[in-house]
Amino acid sequence: MVPRKLILNAFVEMCSGHQSPGLWRHPEDHSHEFNDIDHWVELAKLLEDAKFHGIFIADVLGGYDVYDGNLDAAISSGAQWPVNEPLSVLSAMAAATKSIGFGVTVSTTYEQPYHLARRLSTIDHLCKGSYLDSAARNMGFAQQLQHDERYTQAEEYVKVMYKLFESSWRDDAVLLDRSKGIYTDPSLVREINHNGKYFSVPGPHICQPSPQRTPLLLQAGTSKAGKQFAAQHAEAIFVSSHAPEVCARDIAEIRETAKTQYGRDPSNIKVLALVTPILGHTEEEAQAKIREYRKYASSEGALALFGGWTGIDLGKYGDDEELRYVESNAVKSTVDAYARFSPGTSKWTKHTIAEHVSIGGNGPVLVGTPSQVADGLQIWLDEAGIDGFNLAYTLFPQSFQDVIELLLPELKSRGLFWDDYAVPGGTYRENFYQQKGQSGPLSEHVASKYRWKAGVKAEDHEIPN
Amino acid sequence: MVPRKLILNAFVEMCSGHQSPGLWRHPEDHSHEFNDIDHWVELAKLLEDAKFHGIFIADVLGGYDVYDGNLDAAISSGAQWPVNEPLSVLSAMAAATKSIGFGVTVSTTYEQPYHLARRLSTIDHLCKGSYLDSAARNMGFAQQLQHDERYTQAEEYVKVMYKLFESSWRDDAVLLDRSKGIYTDPSLVREINHNGKYFSVPGPHICQPSPQRTPLLLQAGTSKAGKQFAAQHAEAIFVSSHAPEVCARDIAEIRETAKTQYGRDPSNIKVLALVTPILGHTEEEAQAKIREYRKYASSEGALALFGGWTGIDLGKYGDDEELRYVESNAVKSTVDAYARFSPGTSKWTKHTIAEHVSIGGNGPVLVGTPSQVADGLQIWLDEAGIDGFNLAYTLFPQSFQDVIELLLPELKSRGLFWDDYAVPGGTYRENFYQQKGQSGPLSEHVASKYRWKAGVKAEDHEIPN
Repeated sequence: MVPRKLILNAFVEMCSGHQSPGLWRHPEDHSHEFNDIDHWVELAKLLEDAKFHGIFIADVLGGYDVYDGNLDAAISSGAQWPVNEPLSVLSAMAAATKSIGFGVTVSTTYEQPYHLARRLSTIDHLCKGSYLDSAARNMGFAQQLQHDERYTQAEEYVKVMYKLFESSWRDDAVLLDRSKGIYTDPSLVREINHNGKYFSVPGPHICQPSPQRTPLLLQAGTSKAGKQFAAQHAEAIFVSSHAPEVCARDIAEIRETAKTQYGRDPSNIKVLALVTPILGHTEEEAQAKIREYRKYASSEGALALFGGWTGIDLGKYGDDEELRYVESNAVKSTVDAYARFSPGTSKWTKHTIAEHVSIGGNGPVLVGTPSQVADGLQIWLDEAGIDGFNLAYTLFPQSFQDVIELLLPELKSRGLFWDDYAVPGGTYRENFYQQKGQSGPLSEHVASKYRWKAGVKAEDHEIPN
Repeated sequence: MVPRKLILNAFVEMCSGHQSPGLWRHPEDHSHEFNDIDHWVELAKLLEDAKFHGIFIADVLGGYDVYDGNLDAAISSGAQWPVNEPLSVLSAMAAATKSIGFGVTVSTTYEQPYHLARRLSTIDHLCKGSYLDSAARNMGFAQQLQHDERYTQAEEYVKVMYKLFESSWRDDAVLLDRSKGIYTDPSLVREINHNGKYFSVPGPHICQPSPQRTPLLLQAGTSKAGKQFAAQHAEAIFVSSHAPEVCARDIAEIRETAKTQYGRDPSNIKVLALVTPILGHTEEEAQAKIREYRKYASSEGALALFGGWTGIDLGKYGDDEELRYVESNAVKSTVDAYARFSPGTSKWTKHTIAEHVSIGGNGPVLVGTPSQVADGLQIWLDEAGIDGFNLAYTLFPQSFQDVIELLLPELKSRGLFWDDYAVPGGTYRENFYQQKGQSGPLSEHVASKYRWKAGVKAEDHEIPN
């Protein structure tokens, strides 16, 4: 059997020590230089040379303020604080590269869909289609809707976006006919006249069709509503959990729903798992690295992140308190989940949690030789049914250099990683599905129903609701 | 007397034929390549080599739909349609340059101030302080507030921005203290707790202080409320009118108000006028150019733009109708204003208006040799009391190349243009005020009251209301 080729993204955020708070203190870490534009341009060039599929810049829209009920731990340790806005930096990276894709988390909380669609179409033009996006799941804002209602709103939001991206302009609307003086044929641009529960958007879209029209859609979040949303809309899903068996069931369920309810080929939903590799030429070297990193990792920062991810404030508990026996069921079940996959740990206190989270966040940390780390990745591929990884760093950019120098040759020798982009210079979606010409959504995807194709009369393509 | 050095910006928009609709048909025009990132990177490099102060990317958030009550004329002629979102492209231009500044129009309609402040701080970091902005005055959206109430909202909006940019973080809050493990001192970051009529923003700001903190503020619009706003907040004002005497009074009034009501030095409000130069080595060459350009200019596009700028739909009138004698007072007075500065035109029809607007929009078109065009600029400097120009193009980028090759040497020989940036590699504000170290607002400016300076205790700097 020919092994599947992995999808590999770098997973970063415009902050220091993204999944490994405190590591900015390490003398070789440059993650705190995120305000500098060259920091990002150099990363893009480094990773494109190595044929990474993409760079995913995660985002949060507020600080981690659950722990101790305030931001102090996050601010002091630099745990995802401060955080810049990621869309702003994409054009600089795109100008320096040709094939690598860029993804960001975008907020649907602070922006109207008309405006956001315009920003995303602009980026898709500037990046020549090398663009994917993920709608934010924001926490900690008073004005936010309840979780399930948020998905109802997200459902409407994404449909407004499809209408703007796909239905408002016909593929061939821009004529640039110099002799007749027609830039765009007005009959090939139409209002979308969306009137829904949350949004009223007349349109038309203000940007001409960009290479992908709808950017590749990545979904994170495996709540019940999230899974339903993913089954219909997601082209990629991002998971982060302790062990492959934790997400295997969620992934299978999403794919089953995609197939039965939305008529999609389940294999077209690609799943990417968070993983933090720590590589050495020898096992000893790798183990020495993580021992050294632990000296710099911030427990306070880790507890701040844990608070944001779980909603649990461990600041309420004593330093030595065994968390599996406290009164709160939420705490007990969350800590049990950690304990299940770390049988070597006898006592679970907030310090044990911090130790587990402070390097690599909520995902697995694979430490070892290239062969050992590749074996670890293989287990994820086999047991969770995933398609690739979002690789987090411990040191920036050293961790990515290690991946390039040590891990990629090993993956290539196993037939797990490509030698070049499937479509060099192509769009993100072309490389993602490894299909030249597939810049727009797959024909089976809901967004493609919204596509007003070249040559089709307006009356023959009614905008879906 | 030593002549003043001019401030020169290029005035563009992410669309074709910005102030000269239809000129995209000219075989040497590249303005319609605005979707391409290299288009912008090359422009930035060209203009930085020539020591332009900045590139101002104007923006509109919807199409020009007053003429004939629809978008058809704008769409067909390509008159500012389609239009991409300008903030997205700045980082690509910033990565390729060091000293030139970038300005954009940003929308306060579609975005919450918390989110917009984050985007602007991110850009200011990425551009190393080479950034100015202008709040959008959008037209044509049903949900917009009434004009004067819009300024009341804008007033609150800008104060929220000052609080986020200037008051939330102390200048020296980021310690990066590796030995103590303190990234940022939490006691030097505070919530702004803004509760106003339109916005409720707890803060804190999520970005660390950027080079300028508050970007340089440019104001356009000379309504009564607009002038009051400008007198307090504007560091630059952008004017576009037929003749210097039209804006001289507005400028004088704003500066007087700035002085008497807000205690500002009137000369610190710099005024930039829209002008479209058409240059030739000889007068004949220049005149031949504009004759040629007129062949490509779009009347329909011009009438679409005119409709948006004035609110007047000339589609209602006959081709030969003399507009100075129609019933509508709005039309009569608007057309009279045109007629006043074009005594050679005997009849004013919609075609006459189109001819006046289709090249150079609502601003003066200066046609001639470098010496003649420089004389024309000098009249504006003397009669309107302005400080510089936003130079629009007819052909992109040929018009800017002509300015560089023909006009700048003439201006330099008159002592009107600098040989190099006042502060090479500096922030936009440093170069704008030609004062090294002046990256933040001037001490007399309202924003500086909001600045939480290094070393100052929180209790000694209360956030102004």
